[in-house]
Amino acid sequence: MQASDIIGTIGATLTTASFVPQAWHTFKTKDVRGISLGMYSAFTVGVACWLVYGFLLSEWPIVIANFITLTLAMAILTMKLRYHAP
Amino acid sequence: MQASDIIGTIGATLTTASFVPQAWHTFKTKDVRGISLGMYSAFTVGVACWLVYGFLLSEWPIVIANFITLTLAMAILTMKLRYHAP
Repeated sequence: MQASDIIGTIGATLTTASFVPQAWHTFKTKDVRGISLGMYSAFTVGVACWLVYGFLLSEWPIVIANFITLTLAMAILTMKLRYHAP
Repeated sequence: MQASDIIGTIGATLTTASFVPQAWHTFKTKDVRGISLGMYSAFTVGVACWLVYGFLLSEWPIVIANFITLTLAMAILTMKLRYHAP
């Protein structure tokens, strides 16, 4: 395994896993005022594109990482829409 | 240009650009209570790994996208630390 593979795997794991504490924080506090609707809308669509990209190339690490990220991003987006007091 | 290239480019653009509205929202409102410190800590380190990965492979689209994302993530992380009232 090359150095680039190791550092890429660490990067993919951290960027994917990072949405777990955000989803948990939002679920626990229900405080969504500081969360940008624009960010999670664009991010969710963007990650969905990455998921399709992974499928098209049959690159399963890309599919798995983006499936997990998409699930977490959609959960945060749903909470943003549900807990938002206008 | 293949379909996978187009969808990958859209995905990269959206996931990178999505941090602009979050950085702007946080800068404007200074409301960082809903933002997870754990997320932005892990995410910033993860994106830095992706940046190194891009350099190691001389993949400049990866370098450019992650340089922009790293700048935005660091700005949000800095605001989280600065505006946080314990």
